[in-house]
Amino acid sequence: MPDKIIRMRRFEGEASLRPVMLAIAGDSASGKTTLTGGLVDGLGSDRCVAICVDDYHKFDREERKDQPFTPLHPDCNYIDIMEQHLQLLALGRPILKPVYDHSTGSLTRPEYVEPKEFVIVEGLHPLSTKLTRACFDVTVFLDPPEDIRRDWKVKRDTAKRGYTPEQVCADLEAREPESESFIRPQRRHADIVVRFAPITSRNDSADIPLSAELMLRPTIQHPPLNRLLSDDNKTMHLEIVRDRDGTPTDSLHVHGHASAEEAGQLEKAIWAELNEEGGPPPRIGEIEPGERSEPLALTQLILLYHLLQARE
Amino acid sequence: MPDKIIRMRRFEGEASLRPVMLAIAGDSASGKTTLTGGLVDGLGSDRCVAICVDDYHKFDREERKDQPFTPLHPDCNYIDIMEQHLQLLALGRPILKPVYDHSTGSLTRPEYVEPKEFVIVEGLHPLSTKLTRACFDVTVFLDPPEDIRRDWKVKRDTAKRGYTPEQVCADLEAREPESESFIRPQRRHADIVVRFAPITSRNDSADIPLSAELMLRPTIQHPPLNRLLSDDNKTMHLEIVRDRDGTPTDSLHVHGHASAEEAGQLEKAIWAELNEEGGPPPRIGEIEPGERSEPLALTQLILLYHLLQARE
Repeated sequence: MPDKIIRMRRFEGEASLRPVMLAIAGDSASGKTTLTGGLVDGLGSDRCVAICVDDYHKFDREERKDQPFTPLHPDCNYIDIMEQHLQLLALGRPILKPVYDHSTGSLTRPEYVEPKEFVIVEGLHPLSTKLTRACFDVTVFLDPPEDIRRDWKVKRDTAKRGYTPEQVCADLEAREPESESFIRPQRRHADIVVRFAPITSRNDSADIPLSAELMLRPTIQHPPLNRLLSDDNKTMHLEIVRDRDGTPTDSLHVHGHASAEEAGQLEKAIWAELNEEGGPPPRIGEIEPGERSEPLALTQLILLYHLLQARE
Repeated sequence: MPDKIIRMRRFEGEASLRPVMLAIAGDSASGKTTLTGGLVDGLGSDRCVAICVDDYHKFDREERKDQPFTPLHPDCNYIDIMEQHLQLLALGRPILKPVYDHSTGSLTRPEYVEPKEFVIVEGLHPLSTKLTRACFDVTVFLDPPEDIRRDWKVKRDTAKRGYTPEQVCADLEAREPESESFIRPQRRHADIVVRFAPITSRNDSADIPLSAELMLRPTIQHPPLNRLLSDDNKTMHLEIVRDRDGTPTDSLHVHGHASAEEAGQLEKAIWAELNEEGGPPPRIGEIEPGERSEPLALTQLILLYHLLQARE
């Protein structure tokens, strides 16, 4: 793979290679791990490493019971160490990352992480400070409607983390003020805001995947979708909108009922804008093994576009 | 304590204060913890933090059984992370330090360490690379005779770490080639080499503390002992010698039977060379609670002299 290595960025006289860094921020159970999984699959684990920065907890589950805040509060996390570790990774250096075991709620033996060509950083707080944001080439915020996120969280925390539905709902309520103060404000620092949701004007049946609405902010250079998308495409369209704060931005809608063929055509067209051999990676768009979503696949493809483009 | 803070070193435009860093290197059971303890007592834990860099083990005790080397081998340790953390501390930054639990032999939850005015770093490898050495203002190597170190190690590892004497002896034998290759070579990078040993020409009884031989290399500026020590002092003397490699160095001998009064006089004279209020700290020189050694006290006092002098 010497050509790949040569394409990694290196400043003159510098020994370590600087990876391309992507942040995926969002509240608990907003879909970060699902989105990340497809990107790692698409790039291959030999070129890509993904870490979760929720491991920078100061307290274990037992100790948190005596604390006046939830894990969403910055004071509940070693934000300064997270900043330090993100800076080190961005410089191509290894870190000894703390590890929080979600299944037991305990802090355990740390893990040695070496950056690869691409580093994906997902979690509650990756965009929370100016220093962390400066480490990233591309930043994403996951912004599902609250009712959908609640469903996802109840489903996951009861299945995988040993909580009862009542505990999860109480937890969501306790976390709400800190979600508002510390998680949702990161949205405005993202280059791309991703919302998976049903289209309110349609009554899609439950087996239709959620649609995706991607806010593509002009803070980075996106693929030329206005050129690539034909006007008569009924399941994917691009429009200029104003964001909540009034700033202009592109908004891409990909309907849940978009066909694999339609989505595949746009994916190929986006991929052709890159100087890459071969076509787009085949293994993206999986919600769970066997369950596929074209809106998810297109979202992941656009992120892969940015990661590959950022190397140059 | 505003005056103390002002005296901490800060480079123009830099936010964090840089601590004075002391390394105490030496083989297992060479007396590092005892020496460090008196320094922390002397400075006060509000001004001083001590860390042990043997926590940077890659493997726990169980995993090490399958490894072809002992913990003395650099490949058994995250030397790169140790370098990184020492650099961060030297810059006044906090670290999330790994923790190795000697009583169970397992790697556990890491520990947040913020540098204070003084940082003491003891362990097997603090002087093992050029980058680590560059972090220190003062460097010490503990160099007891092997038979004394063996006694200390058997005593400690059976009392505190749950080994049998036979296991400790087998361990010492297994470690010997790596002691030679990786631990003892650090001796030549130390500003001060400390050897606690009986004086071979005397037959001191067992209740007389060991004498100290301090090699004071001209790599840092030592207190003017040749002026401070009178020629008729029979229990402490200074001479110029050649080190093993032929380089000239000062050698200070403090006899185990030196009286508290004699040692105290020299301590006061050394202390007077500093711009410090009050006298030398009273709580140094303890081998164990209630057991005092004047050679240890003087060794610690000379190190305190260097730490305080290095701030300026």
